[in-house]
Amino acid sequence: MSNDSNINEVLTQLEANQPAALERLVDFLRIPSVSTDPAYAKHCRAAGEWVVAQLAELGFTDARTRGCENHPVAFGHYPGPEGYTGPHILFYGHYDVQPPEPLELWDSPPFEPTIIEAEHGPRIVARGAVDDKGQVMTFIEALRAWKDATGEIPCRITCVIEGEEEAGSEVIEKFLHDAQDELVGGANPDSPCDFALISDTGMWDIQTPSITAALRGLLYVEIVLHGPSHDLHSGHYGGCIVNPINELARIISLLHHDEDRRITVPGFYDDVRALSPERRAEWEALGFDENGFLNHAGFEAGYGESGYSSLERQWARPTCDVNGISGGYEGEGAKTVIAAEARAKVSFRLVPNQNPQKILDSLKAWLNEQLAPGCRIELIEHGTGEPYEVTADWPILSVARDSLQEVLGKPALMAGCGGSIPIVESFKSVLGLDSLLVGFGLEDDRVHSPNEKFEVKCFEIGMRSHAVMLGQFAALAGG
Amino acid sequence: MSNDSNINEVLTQLEANQPAALERLVDFLRIPSVSTDPAYAKHCRAAGEWVVAQLAELGFTDARTRGCENHPVAFGHYPGPEGYTGPHILFYGHYDVQPPEPLELWDSPPFEPTIIEAEHGPRIVARGAVDDKGQVMTFIEALRAWKDATGEIPCRITCVIEGEEEAGSEVIEKFLHDAQDELVGGANPDSPCDFALISDTGMWDIQTPSITAALRGLLYVEIVLHGPSHDLHSGHYGGCIVNPINELARIISLLHHDEDRRITVPGFYDDVRALSPERRAEWEALGFDENGFLNHAGFEAGYGESGYSSLERQWARPTCDVNGISGGYEGEGAKTVIAAEARAKVSFRLVPNQNPQKILDSLKAWLNEQLAPGCRIELIEHGTGEPYEVTADWPILSVARDSLQEVLGKPALMAGCGGSIPIVESFKSVLGLDSLLVGFGLEDDRVHSPNEKFEVKCFEIGMRSHAVMLGQFAALAGG
Repeated sequence: MSNDSNINEVLTQLEANQPAALERLVDFLRIPSVSTDPAYAKHCRAAGEWVVAQLAELGFTDARTRGCENHPVAFGHYPGPEGYTGPHILFYGHYDVQPPEPLELWDSPPFEPTIIEAEHGPRIVARGAVDDKGQVMTFIEALRAWKDATGEIPCRITCVIEGEEEAGSEVIEKFLHDAQDELVGGANPDSPCDFALISDTGMWDIQTPSITAALRGLLYVEIVLHGPSHDLHSGHYGGCIVNPINELARIISLLHHDEDRRITVPGFYDDVRALSPERRAEWEALGFDENGFLNHAGFEAGYGESGYSSLERQWARPTCDVNGISGGYEGEGAKTVIAAEARAKVSFRLVPNQNPQKILDSLKAWLNEQLAPGCRIELIEHGTGEPYEVTADWPILSVARDSLQEVLGKPALMAGCGGSIPIVESFKSVLGLDSLLVGFGLEDDRVHSPNEKFEVKCFEIGMRSHAVMLGQFAALAGG
Repeated sequence: MSNDSNINEVLTQLEANQPAALERLVDFLRIPSVSTDPAYAKHCRAAGEWVVAQLAELGFTDARTRGCENHPVAFGHYPGPEGYTGPHILFYGHYDVQPPEPLELWDSPPFEPTIIEAEHGPRIVARGAVDDKGQVMTFIEALRAWKDATGEIPCRITCVIEGEEEAGSEVIEKFLHDAQDELVGGANPDSPCDFALISDTGMWDIQTPSITAALRGLLYVEIVLHGPSHDLHSGHYGGCIVNPINELARIISLLHHDEDRRITVPGFYDDVRALSPERRAEWEALGFDENGFLNHAGFEAGYGESGYSSLERQWARPTCDVNGISGGYEGEGAKTVIAAEARAKVSFRLVPNQNPQKILDSLKAWLNEQLAPGCRIELIEHGTGEPYEVTADWPILSVARDSLQEVLGKPALMAGCGGSIPIVESFKSVLGLDSLLVGFGLEDDRVHSPNEKFEVKCFEIGMRSHAVMLGQFAALAGG
C-alpha cells in the first residue's frame, strides 16, 4: 500500500475515531495530576499509569512507569515495522498539570472537563486541556489511527511522557542521564533515537501552523554589591562613602545605552546573527498585533532595542532585565540607613550563537570595571541555558513543514520563542538530540490560568498533523 | 554678692556635692525606663516621678508628671529670683533609655551602674549613662549647687524632661502643642520661655567643648515607579516594554552627576550658603580623623561631593541617599519576572536655608521629566524636617561660648550635625524657640549599644559648664 493511500485511510480512521478520542481525552483530564502539591501524588501516579495503559494498548513494548514512584516517567517503546530504517522518534510530553487555583475563577470545575461552544466551534475546558494532556493525545490518537487503519504504527518511537514538567522536571532529568545508553547509545534493542518530537507549544493562529525553530537561552545572575562593612546612619555617613544601593542603581543603568537601549556589556552582540530580510518579511507578514501585545501589559508604546519590532525583540534579539532588586530598609515608613549591601537579580535572554559562559565572563569583567572604589561585587550564578535553534536544512524540519502545509494548506511559520524550554536543552546536552517543536495551542488558551481550554478543532489539527508527519517520517526510511 | 564670687562658691559646692551627685545619678540609672517596650511602662513612670521629685526638692513649683500616664513629661517651673528679668530657660532632656539588648554583650548588667577606671579616670557604665540621664543630671546638679551655695537658682527655668525620646516623642509633641500658651504665650505666671537648652549631644573630645550650631534637615520620600499593569514573563515582555526596576535604577543614577557627585535636581543648591573660609579653617584645625571615620565604615577612601572633606560633607553639605529599594522577585534563586512596580526610599539631608517643600516640588517635576513613557511615579512623602542653625550674633550663644571657654580654657567648637534632632524642630515650629545644644558625651560612649558609658570627668565638666552658664544667663538680666 502506498504512503498516500495509507494516509488517506488513516485520516478517515481519525475522523471515525474522533468521538472516542475526545472521550479518552476527557478521561485523561479527569485525573487531577497536580505535580507541585504532594497531596496529589497518587493522582500523578494514576495519570502516568493511564498513559502507560494507552501505550500498551497500542502495542508499545516495555510500557511502564519509570524513574520514581510519585511522578514517574510514562515510558514505552515501539520498534516500528519490521526492517524499519527510518528515524527513531523520541516523543516527549507531560501528563502533570498546574494547580487549578484560584478555583472561584473557573466557570466549570477544573477536573470535570466541559465542552462548550465558542468562536471556533466546541472547546474543551479543563486544567491541562492544552498544557499538555490534550497535545499528548494528539500524538497518541494519531498512533491509534495508524494502528487501526493499517494494523501498524509506521515509525520507531520511544515515548517519554513526564510527570513533573510543572514542578522542575527533576525526575526526567535524572531519567535521561540514567537511560542515556538505552535512548541514544548502543543499549536500545532497535536503534538510537534520532530526534525529539514535542507538542507543548502553539500555533500562530487557528489557520497557521507553527514550528518553534529557535529558543532563547538564558544567563541569570544575582549581583550582590557589598559596600560598607555594616549598616550605617545616613545622617553621619550619607554622601561621605559609597552607598551600595545608589551604586547598584548606577551600574544597572549602565547595562543599557540610553539612546538605543542596546546592552553595553563588551562583546555582547559579537556572536548575534543578524535577522535575515527573509525572516523579517515572514514575521512582518504575520500581522502581529503589536498594540494588543502592548495593551495587555498596560502600555501604549514599546520600549526596547532600536530598529526592531516587539516580535523581533522577543523572538530574535537578546535582552537584559532586572527581575528583582532589594537592599536597605524595605518596611513601612522611613529609616535613615545606609545599607551594607544591595542585590539585584539580572537575567539575559540570549539568542542562537551567543555563548552564556562567554557573556558571563564579559559581564564579570565589565561589572568590576564599573565599580566605585572600595566596593566589591559578588556574583551568584542562578543558571544558564543555551540558546537553541534548528538548522534550516534539517530533513526532519522539511518533513514537518511539508506535513503541516498538507494538513492546513498554508506554510508553517518558523517561529521564535522568547522564553526557553529546559527539556529541549536537556535533549541536546544529555542526549545530543535536536527537537522538533510542533504544537497546537492558541494564544488565548489560558495556560496556567482558570478556564484553561483546548479547541476541539486544534485537537483535530494536531491529530491529523501527527498522522501525516508519521507517514512522512516513515517515508524517509532508506531514502 | 557679685556674680564672680557667686560662681566660685557654686563651683566649690559642686565639688563638695560630687560624691552625692554620682550616687543620685546611679539611683536614676537603676530605673530601667525603656520606653519602646510596654513591659517597662511602670519603670518609665517611676523615672518620670524620680525627676519630678528632684525638681520639687530644688523648689520648682508645679513639679509633676504631665501629658500621659505611662511615659509622662516630668515638668517643673522655677520662677527665678525676685524681680528676675533675664531669659526664661526651657531645659529639655529625656529620662527614657534604649532597650539594653543584646544583654550578653554587656560586661556588667545594664541597670546596675558600675564605675570602672579607664583612660580618662572613672567612668560610669549603664544604659542611659550618657543618653540622656547623665546629661540631664549635669543640669540638675548645677541647679542644686546654686541652690546649696547661694540659696537660690539664679534663672527662671521651665524643665520638660520627656519619657519617649527613644520611642517617637509623641507625648511631648502633644504636650508642646497643649502647653503652648503656658510655655510661650501669656499663660505663664512669670514670663514666656526665651530659648531651649538641651544637653543630649557631645563634645568634640574631652578637652574641647562643643556647641551644635547647625542641624541638617530632611526630605524623605518613597518613589513608587509603576510600569506594567501586572507582573509579566520576562521571556515574553523583556526588552519590549519598560521594566520598572531598570527604569527606577536609571532614575536613581541620574540623581547625582557622575563627575562630582553633586545632586542634579534643578535648583537643589540655589539656597545653599557657601561654607565660609573661617568655618572651614576652624573645622580643618580640629584634625578630624578622616581615615578612622572611613575605616569604621570599611572604606579606605571617601566618596561624595567634590571639594569637601567628610566632616564638611556631614556638617555643612546637602546629600542624597537611597535608604531602601525593592521590587520584583526577592526570594531564593531565580524567577524570570518583570515586576509591575519598583520602589525606593530616598532621603535628602538639607542644610540651613534650603527649603524641604521647595526641594520636594522640584524633585517631583524633575522625576516626571526623567520618566520613560507609559510609566507613572507615585511619590509617598515620609516627612520633612527643616534644617536648623543658630545665628552667630545670638546673645545666648555668646554667653554659652564664653562660659564653656571659662570652664575648659578653650573656645567651644561651633559644630554641625549630620543628622537631625526632631525636638529642636518642634521647639522652633511649635514654640518659636531657638535651641542651644550643649552636650558632654564623647564619640566612644557607645550610645544605644552595650556598655554605654559616661566619663565621670564629662559629668563634672557638664555640671560646671551648666553652673557657669546659669550665672552668665542671669547676668544678662536687665543688661
